[in-house]
Amino acid sequence: MGRYEDFTKFRQEMNAKILEEGTLEIKRFFGIDERTYHPGALDAKTKELMGLAASLVLRCDDCVTYHIIEALDKDATKDEIYETFTVALVVGGSIVIPHLRRAVSFLEEMLDLSSKLP
Amino acid sequence: MGRYEDFTKFRQEMNAKILEEGTLEIKRFFGIDERTYHPGALDAKTKELMGLAASLVLRCDDCVTYHIIEALDKDATKDEIYETFTVALVVGGSIVIPHLRRAVSFLEEMLDLSSKLP
Amino acid sequence: MGRYEDFTKFRQEMNAKILEEGTLEIKRFFGIDERTYHPGALDAKTKELMGLAASLVLRCDDCVTYHIIEALDKDATKDEIYETFTVALVVGGSIVIPHLRRAVSFLEEMLDLSSKLP
Amino acid sequence: MGRYEDFTKFRQEMNAKILEEGTLEIKRFFGIDERTYHPGALDAKTKELMGLAASLVLRCDDCVTYHIIEALDKDATKDEIYETFTVALVVGGSIVIPHLRRAVSFLEEMLDLSSKLP
Amino acid sequence: MGRYEDFTKFRQEMNAKILEEGTLEIKRFFGIDERTYHPGALDAKTKELMGLAASLVLRCDDCVTYHIIEALDKDATKDEIYETFTVALVVGGSIVIPHLRRAVSFLEEMLDLSSKLP
Amino acid sequence: MGRYEDFTKFRQEMNAKILEEGTLEIKRFFGIDERTYHPGALDAKTKELMGLAASLVLRCDDCVTYHIIEALDKDATKDEIYETFTVALVVGGSIVIPHLRRAVSFLEEMLDLSSKLP
Repeated sequence: MGRYEDFTKFRQEMNAKILEEGTLEIKRFFGIDERTYHPGALDAKTKELMGLAASLVLRCDDCVTYHIIEALDKDATKDEIYETFTVALVVGGSIVIPHLRRAVSFLEEMLDLSSKLP
Repeated sequence: MGRYEDFTKFRQEMNAKILEEGTLEIKRFFGIDERTYHPGALDAKTKELMGLAASLVLRCDDCVTYHIIEALDKDATKDEIYETFTVALVVGGSIVIPHLRRAVSFLEEMLDLSSKLP
Repeated sequence: MGRYEDFTKFRQEMNAKILEEGTLEIKRFFGIDERTYHPGALDAKTKELMGLAASLVLRCDDCVTYHIIEALDKDATKDEIYETFTVALVVGGSIVIPHLRRAVSFLEEMLDLSSKLP
Repeated sequence: MGRYEDFTKFRQEMNAKILEEGTLEIKRFFGIDERTYHPGALDAKTKELMGLAASLVLRCDDCVTYHIIEALDKDATKDEIYETFTVALVVGGSIVIPHLRRAVSFLEEMLDLSSKLP
Repeated sequence: MGRYEDFTKFRQEMNAKILEEGTLEIKRFFGIDERTYHPGALDAKTKELMGLAASLVLRCDDCVTYHIIEALDKDATKDEIYETFTVALVVGGSIVIPHLRRAVSFLEEMLDLSSKLP
Repeated sequence: MGRYEDFTKFRQEMNAKILEEGTLEIKRFFGIDERTYHPGALDAKTKELMGLAASLVLRCDDCVTYHIIEALDKDATKDEIYETFTVALVVGGSIVIPHLRRAVSFLEEMLDLSSKLP
């Protein structure tokens, strides 16, 4: 489970540093970013999958990792995530494939992990 | 309603030309693209909104126009579309704003139009 | 002066619409965006030129237009703006050139206009 | 033939302005850009088609227009150009499609024009 | 030769996983992607070099690695590859340089390796 | 201090290789790139911060690392760098955040290092 923990640890440490040292605008941006995925007219799962699709077409591996974690936490199914991958691949083209490989690798690791929970 | 008609006319004419003249790979890609937004584990409306978010962060005005048309056709509400705009703006930053202005202008025109239907 | 007025009119109308109809996150984002270019450790002119460079490498014509207007308003000189263009061209490559043409065309129009002011 | 002439006129006028007013680095960059497409280990046609593929995946309409003109001038065939479009569409995804429509529209106009030459 | 083997192993394993678990659209996209580089009006080497240029301007290291392998396999020469790098650098600007460094490092490793073959 | 040294070593080795093996256009481009950040109408520090903002919105980690080193060398303060981060985050959106984390991590390491100098 090293990848999940490594990702989360660095993310939390650096976010804390950014919120401690950053400008007021940076802090407010982080606040908005967090609110954006709260349920509203769209539910939280849909928003996370939307964030996942946007992250994949923009080819941001860390953002993809984060939204996979959050989507699973909001009970997105494997099929829903693969359909999100499909939209992103078709919109973004073959340039998305290396990021899709890493996304699939991470997703399978997470699913494997959760299947072992009591 | 010129904008909707102009967009649709040029889109249809050129798609026909591309499918007539294009390579087998281009034709097959167009087939996949069409299938991608069919309902599956995710419903068609969710997929169109996902395509809208991806189009906005990639700043493709024509793609945004197309997915607004399709999302409205799948009964997406104004609030759902504005929440999709929110995800795209926060993910993509202020560089998205000029495209958001055009998206809002087109959306309002479409909503205005549909409110006048019998 | 049609271009300046057209740009400003559409921008103001649609920003008003977005702030009227938009989600709380969109409104807050617009607030942050405005604050970002206030003078701080860096003066306002430097921030506008920085915004101009970022807009050019991201190839956003409307953003380029906006930051040229703001940079001139903060007394950026023609030479400073051309050096900003240089950084953006070298960072972003020949793909920036069509946007540079439009930027130069708009800049010259603005400079010509201001030289005619009493 | 308005589109070809309009494009070429604005391009030439603004390039002249940029070379007149621009920094030394901008002038040198334009020199390099021109040299890049000269024949070497790869012939000029191949380089123009390569520039066309790169322009399409980066979704720069003016760059696409320019490289279509140059590729035709170096005797690229319609089939070679459509295969270049194929590579760009598959690499860049459906987000390329609106640019492909405009590229096909311009290409057909150019081919139609040249078929009428004596 | 670790880099080549690591890249190829992960690529093959994850592609197999994607083709096993993926949607029909993903599978078809992979089929199109493969066909795109088959010889047609353009020969296979030219298409691989075109894919290399597109990958470099889009700054996708894995795609660059893949197209270098394929281009060498289709007998692209070192000079042809460096001219492809030139087109990509000039189109994409200095932002391409870090990816060019990694591309050159990989290319030299591959050339060094092949020079040692019996 | 491994990160700074690793980055600099690979950068210097590969730049030397590129300048040795590269085409004339590549060599000239490297020359222009170097000249671009020389003081002119804008001072060197401002240009480095501008390059930093452009690198962050284009999400190029190595370019960010390089411009942080250069900006510190031109006596940019921590506050000036954080305001540059702010412009880049607001222009580029949340997709910039993973790159901002790495930028902040590197900046803090560099500041920590320089505070220990005699």
